[in-house]
Amino acid sequence: MTTHQDCIALDAQDPLRSLRNLFNIPAGTIYLDGNSLGVMPAATPARVADTVAREWGTDLIQSWNKNGWFAMPQRVGDKIARLIGAGAGEVVATDSTSINLFKVLSAAMNMAAADAPQRKQIVSERSNFPTDLYIAEALCKQHGMELVLVEPEDIAASLTANVAILMLTHVNYRTGAMHDMVAVTAAAHAEGILTVWDLAHSAGAVPVDLTAAKADFAVGCGYKYLNGGPGAPAFVWVNPLHTDRFWQPLAGWWGHATPFEFTPDYRPAAGITRYQCGTQPIISLAALDCGVDTLLAAEAHGGMAALRAKSLALTDLFIALVEERCAGQGLCLATPRIHAQRGSQVCLSMDRSPHAPPLRGSLPPAGTPTDLGRPGGGGDSVAYAIVQALIARGVIGDYRAGDGGRHKDILRFGFTPLYIGFEDVWNAVEHLRQVLESGEWQRPEFNKKHAVT
Amino acid sequence: MTTHQDCIALDAQDPLRSLRNLFNIPAGTIYLDGNSLGVMPAATPARVADTVAREWGTDLIQSWNKNGWFAMPQRVGDKIARLIGAGAGEVVATDSTSINLFKVLSAAMNMAAADAPQRKQIVSERSNFPTDLYIAEALCKQHGMELVLVEPEDIAASLTANVAILMLTHVNYRTGAMHDMVAVTAAAHAEGILTVWDLAHSAGAVPVDLTAAKADFAVGCGYKYLNGGPGAPAFVWVNPLHTDRFWQPLAGWWGHATPFEFTPDYRPAAGITRYQCGTQPIISLAALDCGVDTLLAAEAHGGMAALRAKSLALTDLFIALVEERCAGQGLCLATPRIHAQRGSQVCLSMDRSPHAPPLRGSLPPAGTPTDLGRPGGGGDSVAYAIVQALIARGVIGDYRAGDGGRHKDILRFGFTPLYIGFEDVWNAVEHLRQVLESGEWQRPEFNKKHAVT
Repeated sequence: MTTHQDCIALDAQDPLRSLRNLFNIPAGTIYLDGNSLGVMPAATPARVADTVAREWGTDLIQSWNKNGWFAMPQRVGDKIARLIGAGAGEVVATDSTSINLFKVLSAAMNMAAADAPQRKQIVSERSNFPTDLYIAEALCKQHGMELVLVEPEDIAASLTANVAILMLTHVNYRTGAMHDMVAVTAAAHAEGILTVWDLAHSAGAVPVDLTAAKADFAVGCGYKYLNGGPGAPAFVWVNPLHTDRFWQPLAGWWGHATPFEFTPDYRPAAGITRYQCGTQPIISLAALDCGVDTLLAAEAHGGMAALRAKSLALTDLFIALVEERCAGQGLCLATPRIHAQRGSQVCLSMDRSPHAPPLRGSLPPAGTPTDLGRPGGGGDSVAYAIVQALIARGVIGDYRAGDGGRHKDILRFGFTPLYIGFEDVWNAVEHLRQVLESGEWQRPEFNKKHAVT
Repeated sequence: MTTHQDCIALDAQDPLRSLRNLFNIPAGTIYLDGNSLGVMPAATPARVADTVAREWGTDLIQSWNKNGWFAMPQRVGDKIARLIGAGAGEVVATDSTSINLFKVLSAAMNMAAADAPQRKQIVSERSNFPTDLYIAEALCKQHGMELVLVEPEDIAASLTANVAILMLTHVNYRTGAMHDMVAVTAAAHAEGILTVWDLAHSAGAVPVDLTAAKADFAVGCGYKYLNGGPGAPAFVWVNPLHTDRFWQPLAGWWGHATPFEFTPDYRPAAGITRYQCGTQPIISLAALDCGVDTLLAAEAHGGMAALRAKSLALTDLFIALVEERCAGQGLCLATPRIHAQRGSQVCLSMDRSPHAPPLRGSLPPAGTPTDLGRPGGGGDSVAYAIVQALIARGVIGDYRAGDGGRHKDILRFGFTPLYIGFEDVWNAVEHLRQVLESGEWQRPEFNKKHAVT
């Protein structure tokens, strides 16, 4: 049995422990939601204040040159490139993930239309993050293509001669299950299919090597594991083999070859710059720069490989402690146990399914309520109530509603190795044990649905 | 002749003078570039610091509900609505102007395809801001339509039965010329044509009444006259008659009817919310909120009508003083003298054309150089050099290169009535006079082209 003292000892031995000091973690909080919104780096308030008061307030319009605003999307993009196996000049930090996905999917569709016009399908995963599916659905409607949604185990079989593009999120937002990017990309390419990867839950969370994987297109999020702040700009990467070949229709002036000549006709810039559209939110971009710096600071401590080792140790510990200390409470595990298939989060469910098997020792005693009923079809579930009870205790995870398919309501816990420690894991599980054993989660105040959870 | 004392007296009588205190204007600066990047409001640093340190740093993910992040695009949009004659719930502050233009133009094209499929043209102005033309060009390419570019005097004649959409920028970015939105919209509607208005240089600068004009779609910029900070989110409005009828393809999760049910199929939200796509940059959005508040503060002093009266007084004064004090320097006026045709800026040129006639008394003595030569095709012009010499003296205007058509290189001066005074105008003209009379602009350091000017 792992003890509280064991966890304290693990923190003391952790070579990454000092990185936690790069963040302002609120007192009394165990923050297991960095997969939704990363913690604020300690350096961010001063940097943002300087961007506002000096760069904007004093230097005003001259900051576009003097303070390098003009090249910020590329400069921050170059830093992100180091985290995802991309080269300098291959990434821009810009717009939102949804909008960047629209750009790369458009470019991939233009490319497929030129190279393989008979291919009319885009394949994705049914449980992909919905905005990715919405954007793909919109583009399919415009391009006369078909969006085919499959379960993960059916992806290989779906890669036929009718398929133009395989669009996947590397780490599933709901279950934390991770695809083998190298193998899946190779399988797609073997069938002549382009790959588009959404790295929202993997950039800064797990090692990614887009170059080694020979991926075609990728997008990702700035405000999760990159700690860029709420709604931070996202990023976009295109394999240099393709960048200059294909056009995307969000063809605004910032993607023009010579934007300040103000010519009436569009000529795309060389390279990834053509994936820019309009002026970017500089203040939010400055915060993103600070966030990315926290990950680059880990390079001196082993970088993404060391972060990954710690992440797996944290998620392994969480699973083991839940099994040991929350036995008999009916908790099921929606996240794969196999390391190579797991991102940096662990998802639990109170609703058993083949895809969320009961944890060891967790079958509940007869008569345990497993559902409070769900008026209005949403959210008043056991998982929701447990998450609310934990938040009231300062353990911040989140809840995701069932998708009407194989995935039931879940409790989602993200483990950001930059700032989460082993004792945090102990304390989180201890709170979970108390919430479950006391029945505290059944209090009425924990069963109200908020707009965002 | 107007004197320096007259200008001081005009400031003393100005009922809007106190609004200047809402801004931090750098000492020694006369900032005539609020049409490119508005000055920082005094309230912004504290508001941004609070958004970063308390809302993000302390409240973290709970801020989406607790601090109202979720509804910020609508809340700020409702404030902007008051400045442009739109109703509450009709505007969202989101994404960039280019991207919002893509959304409304897509919706307008879908609407035209349903209602009048034989109409295959979009008409715009050749000297419209280029990003608008690039976005329209991209969409025309996708939809099998044609972008027809005309000079402003030819717009009326171009409104034929082949035209689906008339897309115009209300106030021209280069000349400050303003369209009569009511008359032009009525003329378009009389021919069965939809109107899309870009308010980048009019929202917060001149009175706009989209409802009275019966306009169909509009977008605008947050970082010019709205003082929202560098790259602040833009805004989008759709006439309530059309909002729910038509779909736009940037169909991300934030525009979904129930984004947190995470359903795999897209169902657009009711109303303007369907013009949202992904998560917005909250820190930059907080700054925009402060910027818009400075305009709402003017409501107690007569609002946009009072700001307009002062703006015209400032631009009239600037023109008159340049005529009086910069005689013989060859300056031409690219901005209309007629009030109803003028935005809140004045543009001068050293290159005479029918569209930039010489100012009274400004014909230069024989032998005055009118061009330094333009190596590399761009920017090393007299206008550029004069702007640089003025900037070195703390008078911040900007330079815009000729467009190869009727518009020559210009010196552009924006007059933001919230914070520019009559003595500022006097001083700016006095610096201009000295720069021209001394030949200071011919110094080599003023003839180097920067990336952004």
